[in-house]
Amino acid sequence: MDNKIDVAVIVGSASDLPVINEGLKVLKEFGLNYCVNIASAHRTTEHLKQCLLKAQNAGVKVFIAGAGMAAALPGVVASETVLPVIGVPMEGKNLASMDALFSIVQMPKGVPVATVAVGKAGAVNAAVLAAQIIAVSNSGLKEKLVAYKKKQAEAVIKEDAKLQSEGIETFLEKQ
Amino acid sequence: MDNKIDVAVIVGSASDLPVINEGLKVLKEFGLNYCVNIASAHRTTEHLKQCLLKAQNAGVKVFIAGAGMAAALPGVVASETVLPVIGVPMEGKNLASMDALFSIVQMPKGVPVATVAVGKAGAVNAAVLAAQIIAVSNSGLKEKLVAYKKKQAEAVIKEDAKLQSEGIETFLEKQ
Amino acid sequence: MDNKIDVAVIVGSASDLPVINEGLKVLKEFGLNYCVNIASAHRTTEHLKQCLLKAQNAGVKVFIAGAGMAAALPGVVASETVLPVIGVPMEGKNLASMDALFSIVQMPKGVPVATVAVGKAGAVNAAVLAAQIIAVSNSGLKEKLVAYKKKQAEAVIKEDAKLQSEGIETFLEKQ
Amino acid sequence: MDNKIDVAVIVGSASDLPVINEGLKVLKEFGLNYCVNIASAHRTTEHLKQCLLKAQNAGVKVFIAGAGMAAALPGVVASETVLPVIGVPMEGKNLASMDALFSIVQMPKGVPVATVAVGKAGAVNAAVLAAQIIAVSNSGLKEKLVAYKKKQAEAVIKEDAKLQSEGIETFLEKQ
Amino acid sequence: MDNKIDVAVIVGSASDLPVINEGLKVLKEFGLNYCVNIASAHRTTEHLKQCLLKAQNAGVKVFIAGAGMAAALPGVVASETVLPVIGVPMEGKNLASMDALFSIVQMPKGVPVATVAVGKAGAVNAAVLAAQIIAVSNSGLKEKLVAYKKKQAEAVIKEDAKLQSEGIETFLEKQ
Amino acid sequence: MDNKIDVAVIVGSASDLPVINEGLKVLKEFGLNYCVNIASAHRTTEHLKQCLLKAQNAGVKVFIAGAGMAAALPGVVASETVLPVIGVPMEGKNLASMDALFSIVQMPKGVPVATVAVGKAGAVNAAVLAAQIIAVSNSGLKEKLVAYKKKQAEAVIKEDAKLQSEGIETFLEKQ
Amino acid sequence: MDNKIDVAVIVGSASDLPVINEGLKVLKEFGLNYCVNIASAHRTTEHLKQCLLKAQNAGVKVFIAGAGMAAALPGVVASETVLPVIGVPMEGKNLASMDALFSIVQMPKGVPVATVAVGKAGAVNAAVLAAQIIAVSNSGLKEKLVAYKKKQAEAVIKEDAKLQSEGIETFLEKQ
Amino acid sequence: MDNKIDVAVIVGSASDLPVINEGLKVLKEFGLNYCVNIASAHRTTEHLKQCLLKAQNAGVKVFIAGAGMAAALPGVVASETVLPVIGVPMEGKNLASMDALFSIVQMPKGVPVATVAVGKAGAVNAAVLAAQIIAVSNSGLKEKLVAYKKKQAEAVIKEDAKLQSEGIETFLEKQ
Repeated sequence: MDNKIDVAVIVGSASDLPVINEGLKVLKEFGLNYCVNIASAHRTTEHLKQCLLKAQNAGVKVFIAGAGMAAALPGVVASETVLPVIGVPMEGKNLASMDALFSIVQMPKGVPVATVAVGKAGAVNAAVLAAQIIAVSNSGLKEKLVAYKKKQAEAVIKEDAKLQSEGIETFLEKQ
Repeated sequence: MDNKIDVAVIVGSASDLPVINEGLKVLKEFGLNYCVNIASAHRTTEHLKQCLLKAQNAGVKVFIAGAGMAAALPGVVASETVLPVIGVPMEGKNLASMDALFSIVQMPKGVPVATVAVGKAGAVNAAVLAAQIIAVSNSGLKEKLVAYKKKQAEAVIKEDAKLQSEGIETFLEKQ
Repeated sequence: MDNKIDVAVIVGSASDLPVINEGLKVLKEFGLNYCVNIASAHRTTEHLKQCLLKAQNAGVKVFIAGAGMAAALPGVVASETVLPVIGVPMEGKNLASMDALFSIVQMPKGVPVATVAVGKAGAVNAAVLAAQIIAVSNSGLKEKLVAYKKKQAEAVIKEDAKLQSEGIETFLEKQ
Repeated sequence: MDNKIDVAVIVGSASDLPVINEGLKVLKEFGLNYCVNIASAHRTTEHLKQCLLKAQNAGVKVFIAGAGMAAALPGVVASETVLPVIGVPMEGKNLASMDALFSIVQMPKGVPVATVAVGKAGAVNAAVLAAQIIAVSNSGLKEKLVAYKKKQAEAVIKEDAKLQSEGIETFLEKQ
Repeated sequence: MDNKIDVAVIVGSASDLPVINEGLKVLKEFGLNYCVNIASAHRTTEHLKQCLLKAQNAGVKVFIAGAGMAAALPGVVASETVLPVIGVPMEGKNLASMDALFSIVQMPKGVPVATVAVGKAGAVNAAVLAAQIIAVSNSGLKEKLVAYKKKQAEAVIKEDAKLQSEGIETFLEKQ
Repeated sequence: MDNKIDVAVIVGSASDLPVINEGLKVLKEFGLNYCVNIASAHRTTEHLKQCLLKAQNAGVKVFIAGAGMAAALPGVVASETVLPVIGVPMEGKNLASMDALFSIVQMPKGVPVATVAVGKAGAVNAAVLAAQIIAVSNSGLKEKLVAYKKKQAEAVIKEDAKLQSEGIETFLEKQ
Repeated sequence: MDNKIDVAVIVGSASDLPVINEGLKVLKEFGLNYCVNIASAHRTTEHLKQCLLKAQNAGVKVFIAGAGMAAALPGVVASETVLPVIGVPMEGKNLASMDALFSIVQMPKGVPVATVAVGKAGAVNAAVLAAQIIAVSNSGLKEKLVAYKKKQAEAVIKEDAKLQSEGIETFLEKQ
Repeated sequence: MDNKIDVAVIVGSASDLPVINEGLKVLKEFGLNYCVNIASAHRTTEHLKQCLLKAQNAGVKVFIAGAGMAAALPGVVASETVLPVIGVPMEGKNLASMDALFSIVQMPKGVPVATVAVGKAGAVNAAVLAAQIIAVSNSGLKEKLVAYKKKQAEAVIKEDAKLQSEGIETFLEKQ
């Protein structure tokens, strides 16, 4: 599969990498090729464009962009491509992280960003959504998603079975 | 093209239809086949499942779900499928529409909903995003998206040209 | 009292159990039979239905459902039953926990969820509310609630008496 | 059924009556006896107590209290009884109605208020929740709730059928 | 000065005492007599009334009431007296403390609560405000307030002088 | 009673006068002398100081300051006096009026502003609070406040009596 | 002064022009040359760059950028220049306009946007701020600003004088 | 350059100095002369005026004012000068720091405060913005800003290069 990539992941700052890494693990789990770049919408517009271009030359199908505060990155990526762009709002210390969420989700008509939850849950879901998008025309990947969904359900059910057999006191002590 | 559909649109209430209709016009513009259903996550779980099943039998590729207040519909659709689900938060009279937005975007790990802006901008963007997702494996549609993006840009540029030639007083008077 | 249960408690994730456990202690204090299940509205719809069915077969009178973020669980439970459903919004790291609260309380007409406070105070109050609901037709339990209310009042009054006798400096030092 | 009442409804101001009346219609539909009183937690504590006493003497089973702004009424009712108290936050002009919602739902441990949605949806749901609570020990009422739920579902399904047969343009024009 | 008190301070819970104590120190500094009581609006309405009565019998001039979450206490005190009531919203873990603030400040027409800042700054300011109110007819106390204001200003000016003489690096190291 | 004034009312803009006028009517009802000035904290600091000076020369006992948006006026008045200052947050078109409320209530230690509700309810309550403050050393005014409180209660009770005699349908029709 | 411009004003949409026009009137009042362009950060990145380039070629000193929702425009302008950029958040129908404000003000380190108030007040203040910035090295303009400030103060004082001479009833009637 | 200063920095409290110091380092980096003062808008109006006067006598070109809670300081500075005033909202423990942000940014027409992000990012950006303002008529400083912008971009690009060469696992381990 040489240098072909499926998903190009871009974060606005190195400090966003531990969060976005939760999503990269999921991309790997689905056998998707991805690249990760640090590129700021506000500080490195040229570098960002080159990352986008390089990704598009490598056949990228979906972009994931994570940013915090006045999180313009996902929207700027969306302005440069007609590929689907998924935005991950990063947690911030102020404004209850509403700044990142609102900056990403409230895009004007014609330039959507597919926004997911704030922080790590969002990073994971960005990866799953990217897989779902690619799976629209890839039945093998779709089967993996069905299996992933089943595994998720089984994990909850197993947890519940453990709770039933141990009782809540024991269950909580063991955690 | 018999009964094949590309996008299944579901709203929680008939009162959401005028908003979601802005997106339907865009789907039509892109030549996408779609169905629209009213089905409530909280009132008609059985009917909702049948809508989802019927859509899946018709080869649906992407779901769009619009709902307001404690907007569970997009998440419930996402729980029943591994296809991409796009959520449109409807405007509400209270809580500054944060209720619908937060209920749709803050999905737990593994069950993403691709959330777009609140209200009509979101309805349009849900349609564009659906087209972008389908276009990942449809180069004809991708070209239409490129053209749409170009047309959007030209509309802004034309508006600006009009502003430059008329001056702001005349421009504002004519509006 | 064989397998009869009064209150069925469901949480969306094992991580919600330490919080909800504060309510379980109260249910026990009131001598109510309860079961606790982990079942996710978004990941295990089938398992959730089975939990609800099992609870209904065991004569459950009230449901308590706790969930965080886009907390659909209480609403989904409410969509499947005509029994009273109490929703407990879990604390989250982002959006000041408004996401869980708004997702639970803003239910559409006809499908109420009796929402209580965010976090542990809510877990306790869900249990008290469940007892109040069952006590509507159970005078023995009603007397227990009267006693509980009195004990609560006495605890405050005793605390105040201690404050009066010790003075605030000593009182604060001892804490 | 002489002077027996099932549900006592109290609002903080006459201006709340048009909203709460949406709930009264539902109580009537369920054949429940109710009384309605205007009594302010902050202006008429004595009168409020008499309303509560009178309701309790008439065998009331559930309280519904609606109030706006610093909505203390539901909590004050809850402090005076061990019966279930349902709180309806009224819409306000400021603070996006968060003031009424937060004032009602964030009750301290031991004194729950079963909070429902802001405004008319909340008024309706307060009535349905009251019926659900009374139905815990009233199988006739429970059947009515099952029928109500079914009717609700049928209304949505009928609306959807109309949409399918008319198409969205015609459907929207007729509204 | 026998049992006369100037300011009656009431908190809803013992956990509020460390915060309110910041205000008690200020009352002491102004030579004001005060009492402190723990009395919950929702759990000990009778005890609360007795505290209010006792305070009124002791000639109280101003009430200070501190509470968190659905902070009804200040409003309930205000409903029972025509004396000025100052409300201190306590910090909470959720909803960014907006719950306590909105519950205290948004009082209906005719029943004001003089609301101050959330947390310790509010506790101090409640005490200063109480002194200002009493000083309206007490010129000795008014002079103390003028001196307090001057001392506050001098502390800032001294801090600034230190900053000027040390330079910011040294100033920050010493902190 | 020559030029003596009890309450000095200051608003930041002429557009605040219709709101604050609701409070002036109450001051008049209590027989209090007052002056009203338009003076902006940000635009007319000199004029504001002269208003404050003039009021103090006229023996003012309490200040009421109303302002919207970044509502600095009440705090600036508080910085210039040791008399009690009551702040009325004005309604705004944006930010759900939280800007005015937060700007007024969150004063730093030592410089309290007695904050009341947003808008007209706040204007009325500022007047009642001013009367309560002056009444601390004015038993005649205190009696008027007791009477006002009683009249308020009677108005609610009368409204309730009307509701009881007419029934809700008739009551609502007549409104 | 041929084609030289002092201030380049850019809005994201023609619908922002009536708001931003309030600022243009102020620029004109100060005798500043300005251009106005419609250019979207998300739809017309190329056109936006050309507008910025053209403005820079014309010697622009300050940029003003107005946008609503996920208001990326001011930040994108700031990423392309080292000139001061002033951002005006436009009013929106949802999220209490917090989306536009947070998207503009929460810029990352190194790329400031000088943010002003939401809506028309912000449009006016953007113009005044632009004048203040240019006046740093233009004493003639600085004098105009002093005169403007004085005129503003006089308008308030005149309004107040009118209020004093007419009394509030007459004053309000005439409005 | 004797006692000439370019930027006068004022904070409302010594506790704001560690935050504002991030900006001072940037001012130094740009070779700008600055002074720092502690002066409270609410506690030391006289001292504040003297600081402003002294700064103006030293030829100050731009003010930076940082404050938290009901952050009146930047607005009060703006009311006293026609020079540009930059406001830095300080982080607070409550209200998600919205209090400081709203108090600073929502200035009335005619008295702008150039508001930057909450906390340290804001402190840095205030310094950069001050440099940008002064650079409008100082081409040497403008070149420094261009170099700073370039250095910022290079830092991001270097970080990205490191990420590409090390891979994300190694990159994250080293942090």
